[in-house]
Amino acid sequence: MAQGQGDYRILHEADLRDYLAGVPGLKALLGGEAASWRITEVGDGNLNLVFIVKGARGGIAVKQALPYVRLVGESWPLPLSRAHYEYLALMRQAELAPGLVPAVLHHNEALALTVMELLEPHIIMRKGLVAGTQYPRFVDDITTFMARTLFFTSDLALSAAEKKEAIAAFAGNHALCKITEDLIFTDPYRIAEQNRWTAPYLDGLAASLRDDMDLHVAISRLKLKFMASPEALIHGDLHTGSIMVTVSQTRVIDPEFAFYGPMGFDVAAVLANLLMAYFASAAHERAPGERAAFEAWMLETVEQVWTEFARKFLDLWRAGAAGDAYPVSLFAGEQGAARLEAERQSYMQRLFADTVGFAAAKIIRRIFGLAHNIDFELIDNPKQRAVSEARAVRLARAMMVETDAFSAIADVTNAARRLRNWLPELAAG
Amino acid sequence: MAQGQGDYRILHEADLRDYLAGVPGLKALLGGEAASWRITEVGDGNLNLVFIVKGARGGIAVKQALPYVRLVGESWPLPLSRAHYEYLALMRQAELAPGLVPAVLHHNEALALTVMELLEPHIIMRKGLVAGTQYPRFVDDITTFMARTLFFTSDLALSAAEKKEAIAAFAGNHALCKITEDLIFTDPYRIAEQNRWTAPYLDGLAASLRDDMDLHVAISRLKLKFMASPEALIHGDLHTGSIMVTVSQTRVIDPEFAFYGPMGFDVAAVLANLLMAYFASAAHERAPGERAAFEAWMLETVEQVWTEFARKFLDLWRAGAAGDAYPVSLFAGEQGAARLEAERQSYMQRLFADTVGFAAAKIIRRIFGLAHNIDFELIDNPKQRAVSEARAVRLARAMMVETDAFSAIADVTNAARRLRNWLPELAAG
Repeated sequence: MAQGQGDYRILHEADLRDYLAGVPGLKALLGGEAASWRITEVGDGNLNLVFIVKGARGGIAVKQALPYVRLVGESWPLPLSRAHYEYLALMRQAELAPGLVPAVLHHNEALALTVMELLEPHIIMRKGLVAGTQYPRFVDDITTFMARTLFFTSDLALSAAEKKEAIAAFAGNHALCKITEDLIFTDPYRIAEQNRWTAPYLDGLAASLRDDMDLHVAISRLKLKFMASPEALIHGDLHTGSIMVTVSQTRVIDPEFAFYGPMGFDVAAVLANLLMAYFASAAHERAPGERAAFEAWMLETVEQVWTEFARKFLDLWRAGAAGDAYPVSLFAGEQGAARLEAERQSYMQRLFADTVGFAAAKIIRRIFGLAHNIDFELIDNPKQRAVSEARAVRLARAMMVETDAFSAIADVTNAARRLRNWLPELAAG
Repeated sequence: MAQGQGDYRILHEADLRDYLAGVPGLKALLGGEAASWRITEVGDGNLNLVFIVKGARGGIAVKQALPYVRLVGESWPLPLSRAHYEYLALMRQAELAPGLVPAVLHHNEALALTVMELLEPHIIMRKGLVAGTQYPRFVDDITTFMARTLFFTSDLALSAAEKKEAIAAFAGNHALCKITEDLIFTDPYRIAEQNRWTAPYLDGLAASLRDDMDLHVAISRLKLKFMASPEALIHGDLHTGSIMVTVSQTRVIDPEFAFYGPMGFDVAAVLANLLMAYFASAAHERAPGERAAFEAWMLETVEQVWTEFARKFLDLWRAGAAGDAYPVSLFAGEQGAARLEAERQSYMQRLFADTVGFAAAKIIRRIFGLAHNIDFELIDNPKQRAVSEARAVRLARAMMVETDAFSAIADVTNAARRLRNWLPELAAG
């Protein structure tokens, strides 16, 4: 994965134009003269350069990793090898969940550069949710993506040998894992330079989380699970900013955090970000009740994401598990089949508990850590924003510390519904 | 790890003599003319060639991997790369637990050959236990070995990046893991050609294990834990046949099954094999009560292996954990320190539960699977052997299915003591 890194250079617009013109397949796809191609840098993420290139015939998206965190600059270096792991993950996801990730058209390892189909007119799902848009395809697509990518890379589908080789193939992506370990599982719970929150309203809440030792034990157990439970190839950053949608299509993008980790982390990312969209919604209303239908859809979507994911995952397991875990030879006959089915349900229950805990961690980091999201950030009135955030944090704290009290997804949505109009006590502004 | 495998050849006595004579350090250590060296093949394990070579000045042990399972022959191929992993593990163990593994004097990757210090007058501990010998150094040495090798290769001592690289470095040893997965976690619970047991006395018990779906769920959960919980660098085969002892010294040998797996598996191997020695002891008596002191020492040793291991592991953790798990910055102040200490105890409790389950698996495989042990095999009278084995299996079944009932090591030893004279109903002989 390190080969040819000496050939790396950052491709600015003119270099990129020359480079693309030199790749016959891409040149043909774009069409017309290279000089006529319109190139726009659109990277609004935190890490990379992203260009949209349009020619007379068609368009492409070009992603190039930078040797540092774009958001912060050269003082925070980050290995280019992440482009290698993103490419590996994209290819595996395309194989397992066809049509749900962008097609890769070209990859250059030395340049840490990947060219993909242009997703148009897709938008980042998070933007649509802030606007109150409902996406009727979303549940079916995202649950198919998760069920298939997680099941088929797990011990239920792989031999132990294949699994170990696959874990090793992603082991080098630890710099990206480290970002998650620090920013999600550690910093929000201690004084850290990069933390921020809606001050002064959440100052008291931030301080209470730093003193909450039950919470610190819970987040530390989750951190250990994240580091040392290579259950499946997870996307690793599956929030609504990594999902592009139209009303009829869903595409999962940006798997550069991919590695073998706990399955619940991916499911949790989806659920946590839907829950945050729900809690932010009240503050995006222009008139009371204006977004009631959207909010109802949001909670229904939270429920369906879990139930449909679990149903599809179980169906794949029942349809024939070729992996070394739970060998069918140990569950022969009617009695064996019944016992195995009961164990499958227990397995999903354990996965649900992981998911509840990880979802809580994903919420708290977006409110007290480095990276926030526009669901909350676009609420102009800081006091109103703090109210929405405090509701989300109240749910998250319960989910992380009293995880056993959430034994079904309805326990989560009911708790969210009860907090819809809860008025927290905030520090004076 | 595959480099130069084309140069592999099996070294028979004459080749070995020439080879050793060509390595100046070894030649000097042995002393005298190569022609005078006494070379004896002593491999009584299942997999490899082992030679003892003695010269005028000193002696060495030479271990060479064969490209197949020695016990079975060329029909069961096994990769030579296991010698590479054994060497890696030996070097790491020597660093972490100095003086508790044989010193490596020479390693040849292409020949899958390792030369070690000759352990003399050490004997295989299992043989000593069959004879009823007590080893006063054993508890302290084996618990130091386990606490240090497990702690310092875990997430408590390593950064997540170091841990992932270390996992990857051992990922290729999956053929050896597969032996464990099949022979310990699968075959004893189903019809399998290689299974054997003390027939006809245990025929009924063997059949009942094959029909026991609670047991099959429990063993399947343990198998999944074995495959997908890379907690630390484990020895992987730490039974009393992999330990060489004198009354004053202990050396752990043969870590060719080493990989990143669940810590409880190693502790369990030690406990399970001590428990089997205990259950076999009654049948090795020449007069009633003759081995009472040995048996009391045996159960006391079982207790101390756990309590001393746990004490040393916790002391290492308290002394300063440099790993990414449980960051001390989240447990500041008196209240934080107290909560972290409580969590350390919970952590050990979870590790104890794993240990209880794995120990049960280790017992059952030795009675119904392919590989048996001389503790039981040297009981001449098959009916008496079956009685001893049935006692061990009764305890093992409870430990695996009702693991929660064993919350402390005394629960295990008390149950063993109660079964000392239990008379099982056996099939007619």
